[in-house]
Amino acid sequence: MEAIILLLLALISLTCSIIAFATSDQIPIQDFCVADVKYSETVYGYACKDPKLVIADDFYLSGTELAGNTSNPFGSSAKRISLTQLPGLNTLGITIARADFAPWGVNPPHYHPRASEIITVVEGTIEAGFITSNPENRLLKKILVKGDVFVNPRGLVHYQRNVGDGNAAFIAALASQNPGVVMVGNAVFGSDPTISSDLLAKAFHVDENVIHKLQEAN
Amino acid sequence: MEAIILLLLALISLTCSIIAFATSDQIPIQDFCVADVKYSETVYGYACKDPKLVIADDFYLSGTELAGNTSNPFGSSAKRISLTQLPGLNTLGITIARADFAPWGVNPPHYHPRASEIITVVEGTIEAGFITSNPENRLLKKILVKGDVFVNPRGLVHYQRNVGDGNAAFIAALASQNPGVVMVGNAVFGSDPTISSDLLAKAFHVDENVIHKLQEAN
Amino acid sequence: MEAIILLLLALISLTCSIIAFATSDQIPIQDFCVADVKYSETVYGYACKDPKLVIADDFYLSGTELAGNTSNPFGSSAKRISLTQLPGLNTLGITIARADFAPWGVNPPHYHPRASEIITVVEGTIEAGFITSNPENRLLKKILVKGDVFVNPRGLVHYQRNVGDGNAAFIAALASQNPGVVMVGNAVFGSDPTISSDLLAKAFHVDENVIHKLQEAN
Amino acid sequence: MEAIILLLLALISLTCSIIAFATSDQIPIQDFCVADVKYSETVYGYACKDPKLVIADDFYLSGTELAGNTSNPFGSSAKRISLTQLPGLNTLGITIARADFAPWGVNPPHYHPRASEIITVVEGTIEAGFITSNPENRLLKKILVKGDVFVNPRGLVHYQRNVGDGNAAFIAALASQNPGVVMVGNAVFGSDPTISSDLLAKAFHVDENVIHKLQEAN
Amino acid sequence: MEAIILLLLALISLTCSIIAFATSDQIPIQDFCVADVKYSETVYGYACKDPKLVIADDFYLSGTELAGNTSNPFGSSAKRISLTQLPGLNTLGITIARADFAPWGVNPPHYHPRASEIITVVEGTIEAGFITSNPENRLLKKILVKGDVFVNPRGLVHYQRNVGDGNAAFIAALASQNPGVVMVGNAVFGSDPTISSDLLAKAFHVDENVIHKLQEAN
Amino acid sequence: MEAIILLLLALISLTCSIIAFATSDQIPIQDFCVADVKYSETVYGYACKDPKLVIADDFYLSGTELAGNTSNPFGSSAKRISLTQLPGLNTLGITIARADFAPWGVNPPHYHPRASEIITVVEGTIEAGFITSNPENRLLKKILVKGDVFVNPRGLVHYQRNVGDGNAAFIAALASQNPGVVMVGNAVFGSDPTISSDLLAKAFHVDENVIHKLQEAN
Repeated sequence: MEAIILLLLALISLTCSIIAFATSDQIPIQDFCVADVKYSETVYGYACKDPKLVIADDFYLSGTELAGNTSNPFGSSAKRISLTQLPGLNTLGITIARADFAPWGVNPPHYHPRASEIITVVEGTIEAGFITSNPENRLLKKILVKGDVFVNPRGLVHYQRNVGDGNAAFIAALASQNPGVVMVGNAVFGSDPTISSDLLAKAFHVDENVIHKLQEAN
Repeated sequence: MEAIILLLLALISLTCSIIAFATSDQIPIQDFCVADVKYSETVYGYACKDPKLVIADDFYLSGTELAGNTSNPFGSSAKRISLTQLPGLNTLGITIARADFAPWGVNPPHYHPRASEIITVVEGTIEAGFITSNPENRLLKKILVKGDVFVNPRGLVHYQRNVGDGNAAFIAALASQNPGVVMVGNAVFGSDPTISSDLLAKAFHVDENVIHKLQEAN
Repeated sequence: MEAIILLLLALISLTCSIIAFATSDQIPIQDFCVADVKYSETVYGYACKDPKLVIADDFYLSGTELAGNTSNPFGSSAKRISLTQLPGLNTLGITIARADFAPWGVNPPHYHPRASEIITVVEGTIEAGFITSNPENRLLKKILVKGDVFVNPRGLVHYQRNVGDGNAAFIAALASQNPGVVMVGNAVFGSDPTISSDLLAKAFHVDENVIHKLQEAN
Repeated sequence: MEAIILLLLALISLTCSIIAFATSDQIPIQDFCVADVKYSETVYGYACKDPKLVIADDFYLSGTELAGNTSNPFGSSAKRISLTQLPGLNTLGITIARADFAPWGVNPPHYHPRASEIITVVEGTIEAGFITSNPENRLLKKILVKGDVFVNPRGLVHYQRNVGDGNAAFIAALASQNPGVVMVGNAVFGSDPTISSDLLAKAFHVDENVIHKLQEAN
Repeated sequence: MEAIILLLLALISLTCSIIAFATSDQIPIQDFCVADVKYSETVYGYACKDPKLVIADDFYLSGTELAGNTSNPFGSSAKRISLTQLPGLNTLGITIARADFAPWGVNPPHYHPRASEIITVVEGTIEAGFITSNPENRLLKKILVKGDVFVNPRGLVHYQRNVGDGNAAFIAALASQNPGVVMVGNAVFGSDPTISSDLLAKAFHVDENVIHKLQEAN
Repeated sequence: MEAIILLLLALISLTCSIIAFATSDQIPIQDFCVADVKYSETVYGYACKDPKLVIADDFYLSGTELAGNTSNPFGSSAKRISLTQLPGLNTLGITIARADFAPWGVNPPHYHPRASEIITVVEGTIEAGFITSNPENRLLKKILVKGDVFVNPRGLVHYQRNVGDGNAAFIAALASQNPGVVMVGNAVFGSDPTISSDLLAKAFHVDENVIHKLQEAN
């Protein structure tokens, strides 16, 4: 009998909790709707926790001062705060993230489909830039030091890299509880399955073997 | 004196008309706000035309049955309806476009930062696909024939190509009056100025000469 | 036992899945939320399908090139794409429709409470018009041929009719996943129960027997 | 010289002030934006008045306790509060209205394209109803007395009539600063120019002479 | 067995129905979504009732002409219409309220985080005012008599009091289905647990014993 | 002549530029709309700068690592980034701020009518709390150290104070380009003109001389 109850609860979580995720970054119609993360492994979003059970810890998280692991080919790390970590963010339309860079580490070209972003450098020297949309494709970029701020408008491709010899890091504020991220290299050259190499060769005006090299690497 | 008036009107159009463009794809608070396109060459958006002067032609456009010119390296053409052509679209949150393809023509990977899209094939056989966001990067694709419909969610990278021996074409409906377009190749490899090739080499895990080939071609 | 599970699943679908339908045509907070149409006959909206189970077919539909059946008193047919047919449209704020007309067929006065509309004629010659709101009540209308486009602003009464001797058809793009439709004749003269005929006689400044003829016919 | 300045100011008001009207019923990004009604006769919307010049009277209006004139064929009157009367409403997404009824007076079938409505009866006995959208076309109606409340959802056709022997009145709250109103009879049978009577005859399944009677009366 | 079903239904209501509450005051994507109030005592929001079961009573409420009980230290009473009382308001972005005042009764300083408000005096003489945001902190106030209207912009602190010798009352229209209310005195001096009195003393520039008096009273 | 042109430009800026400020924190319909701050001293918001003239510096600001001046009765300082400082934020729906605290300094009870907030402690030890809305009025609070994060939901009263012996500081991310701030003490006890002390005495259940002390101090 209990197995059935658990099964049903799982089904409920599967079909119901998803729905909160489907609501948008809009003004909520209550003070807050803390994510109910009980079923976090099986669902894709969260219903509201009973307000009576909400505690200060639902709005609290520690550890953003800790650098991420940059021992990877990019020499960089990006940690975004999710609703699982900070359930109080549910419905509030904002989140933050931290990026760390080894010397000359790169945060490769990417964009956030659902959020503009303000980055604030907390350590080191960082080149940050974004590219305007077609047909201008202008690159706007700056060299940033500690305390400098740079804005990446929603949906535009941007990147950063550490241009100093020491470590570098920034904190980012993003105007969505779930900004999403599309890594351009992964999307175009590393999708599953891959986009046909002859199609990409024609799209990028290069030989197919150039595309093959990119597809092998991403 | 009249010159000054014209100058002032130009300045007014420069500083004021822009503002309508700044309003968002939301429910307007009037029935319609036909774009006043008198100053179309110098401004980036449009104020409302006097409702008394609005005519049926403001909501009318001909020519969408005509194929675009596909004599270019992509073998494709994309024509989007702008407010200048169809001023009645102002504030209504929707537009359409037409794409044409020579045999094996390609509409290269791109995305629309402000609109989901439904394409409807009107001629030929077209492969259409989009890639989900990080970290999944799944490619979802279909082969489409006349009358087939495919959906590209807002902000995700997508492409199409003609996989038949004749011409091909589709009509697209887009959920914004100004969806915007970011051509991934142009943004990453063809920006002005270019992104440093060593940065891109590290970001895409390839030799710098691979990046150079892409930068020369885009 | 299984009966109880089915009952509970039905109840879950009844109380939960409805909710996705209650979310609005806004920017979603995920890339997509494909409608879970398992319970489509008993519910009025859809939760998100598990992203891992999403396939390209969720974003695909065939058959829009096929004419609808116009053998009815209106001599016209309107087919709107629903979430049941194209579950990938869920949360994306757009849909399309197809209308067909026998010679001199009429799409009677109606409006969409939740969407502006762009129609594109694909066959024949069509008169299209909409009426501005009170107190102007201006009729803006055009004769359209193949490739012509006409815009109906959200919430305004509009109609079309085939003014040629052959068949006619258009494809419509609508700026909502569920635009809704109010057929003016059905709402005013054909509601269940009917509005009192003496009330309508006073409202329309005609004798009650005129209203009776309209009520009998709608 | 002053004449030119006035002309220019008029032009400014014509091209600029309209724009505030084009913003939507959304959360504003300031506390208030009192409508600047200096140019109220020539424009269709209002820019923000200088906050320093804003006074309490901008948020104040008297006279809603006064009955409107019901000496007309409908035996009813509807007074909506406009921004010209109450400029403080600008950007706040709400307005109110007052309707009065002579005995058996009728507020004919109409709808508000941009607002749901709550009516509160302050005098007399009123029948109020609305019709759900196609294909159900259900009429939901109630008889209301003083203090009773009835809700008309956004965009649905509704009506009221006085079903008592004395006067009747209600106050309406509407969820938009400019709800708009489409009077169904005027839109369909009284537009300028009129919709072809043969088209309407086919649309409403009645003889053309029935349509002629309605067109002559509306 | 029935116990389990009831338990499961309770759980469903706990995790699911909440979600409708999490949707925002936006344009819904259906005509209406009447709140399903079956589980009203255990949940914090409502899913949509089956449209087939919706009746006119879902949109109806009586009793707003009745004065509330003002026998309390404030000498005032505020009754807001909730979804439990008027389930048809769900998703429609509007509600109303009634306030009553004994002679010299006070509706203490408060604000609505999610709605602008229009008050209409129906009895007596009322002083109404709101304070603009920092750093101006201007008080805009008026004396209102029957039929007078005053607007309180969203999120600003406002108050009213009866400045006449008889009773007074107003009806308020609010631009949200759930405007929320923060009573400034209760929030600052009467929270559970209380804010440290030394902190408040420093914040308000007064001796701690002044704060103690306020904390004891609120 | 030039004087007139300047006068007219000033008038244009006064009546027009305001309007961009009136648009809401929604998805813009262009990639960005950099604020045109030429007229910053006389206007209350900004039109879009010509995109061709936009430069990287429009999205850049330095100095957020510098502590504000805390030599004041509160022992605290709050610096919010305005559009004048960082014009690229216009239309993007986000901003950041920095607060500094002398030992035991207090950021007094206040709220932001248009934004939720995430604070990240960068130095010292801070007590942060917010109070839920009426009727619960629960205080949720935490002691935060470097790297700790705390969320203040939109529109709820919150405060912070330095509970350590050294300086303290945090960076805040806010989900609006213009969150606004209402300082509760200033609004209630320090408005211009003041709210009647007898009214406040009744509202807060204390003697009028308690109110007088608060009014003198704020």
